[in-house]
Amino acid sequence: MTANVKADPSRYDQKLELILRASARIFAEKSYHSTSMRDISRATGISLAGLYHYCKSKEELLFLIQDHCFGRVLQRLEERLQSESDPIARLRIFIDNHLSFFAANMAEMKVLSHEAESLGGDLHEHVSTRKRQYTRTAYKMLSEVRQAAVGAQRTTRRNGATSKTARPVEVTVATYALFGMMNWIYTWYQPKRDLPLPLLMEQMLRIYFFGVLQGTAVEAPWFNSTSGTPSKDTFSLWRNNQ
Amino acid sequence: MTANVKADPSRYDQKLELILRASARIFAEKSYHSTSMRDISRATGISLAGLYHYCKSKEELLFLIQDHCFGRVLQRLEERLQSESDPIARLRIFIDNHLSFFAANMAEMKVLSHEAESLGGDLHEHVSTRKRQYTRTAYKMLSEVRQAAVGAQRTTRRNGATSKTARPVEVTVATYALFGMMNWIYTWYQPKRDLPLPLLMEQMLRIYFFGVLQGTAVEAPWFNSTSGTPSKDTFSLWRNNQ
Repeated sequence: MTANVKADPSRYDQKLELILRASARIFAEKSYHSTSMRDISRATGISLAGLYHYCKSKEELLFLIQDHCFGRVLQRLEERLQSESDPIARLRIFIDNHLSFFAANMAEMKVLSHEAESLGGDLHEHVSTRKRQYTRTAYKMLSEVRQAAVGAQRTTRRNGATSKTARPVEVTVATYALFGMMNWIYTWYQPKRDLPLPLLMEQMLRIYFFGVLQGTAVEAPWFNSTSGTPSKDTFSLWRNNQ
Repeated sequence: MTANVKADPSRYDQKLELILRASARIFAEKSYHSTSMRDISRATGISLAGLYHYCKSKEELLFLIQDHCFGRVLQRLEERLQSESDPIARLRIFIDNHLSFFAANMAEMKVLSHEAESLGGDLHEHVSTRKRQYTRTAYKMLSEVRQAAVGAQRTTRRNGATSKTARPVEVTVATYALFGMMNWIYTWYQPKRDLPLPLLMEQMLRIYFFGVLQGTAVEAPWFNSTSGTPSKDTFSLWRNNQ
């Protein structure tokens, strides 16, 4: 991004993070458009002149938050998927990765959902490209899961079922239904008040994979066997949880 | 709301509707905060002074849009539920009602989802009360569906299944998962480009009731037997589709 002078990279980055965290919180609270650089200055205790040492504009702050979000989610997803080839396990990892990131960074994710159109030009294009890439990843995984599911049903049908009029679940609808279900949590989920994240995750897997009418009948261990990183491992976008 | 002089109620209401429609479109496009009364004046061809004959402020316009949305959705839902007592059929009607309203009023529903916090004080409280009422309706319906589903599973279990560790689907999660899945469509669904609304509805019922892993196996007629008004009956928030 901007080529500001970085005398001490690590101190510089720490301060930038502090600014981005505060900005995300304020954008989430009162919207990007209602936030002024002066609000951010007040919240961080950094002078206006000081802020402009770290970013060119309020828009750049919004961009850095969104770009950083997608960067971290995608990077961690790739790492976790490397050792897994089963389609359902991969989709589970995707959901786990998304939800744990989302729950640990609610303000940032609200900004990502709400302020997607507040960026213009190249910055908007850059974030949109990342978002399309992420959506395509989910779409591809769901296609593979559907392949597997349709295969299993063909076998069942051959064994006596009569599901001639069955219509497959459309992958596009399934993709956005998943994102809707997961992303909507910023409107209601409060980790300290509601069920803990691992349980929320199990519930969502239950509903999404087996539906509200049948989800109850599926054994709990089915949802706990996510290979790779355990689902209680939430991760913050920022390095210092100060 | 405001007690403006209504010389000719029907002309007055028509003009107010025209203003609300235009405002909803602009709020959805560029956010409430970035919209000025001057933008609305330009879009409607009504002078600023003329606008203030219909509303006290931009905030009142936002309130009227949101209040009108909930009013219409709730009113129509009540009408459609009157003749139905089966829990699953009632939930189907709820989903049908919400989705068909949503798809026919995408701008208004985006404003409802996005600008919930842009209202303050009493106006906010009024809309929040309606929203809570609506959420409670969904919650109650899902509780009844779960009762029915759990009952059915007990019978299955008695007949040989061994689902001892089964954990019920939590009604709160199921409620918000449903709203998330449905409301998220404003971020992606384009009726002219994507699948037609009755199919979208079927797909969502499939996923929500039976899940992506099993939804394919359920017969299509299951989703078409919604009693009451057929699902292709979309309805606009406004009377004149001009």
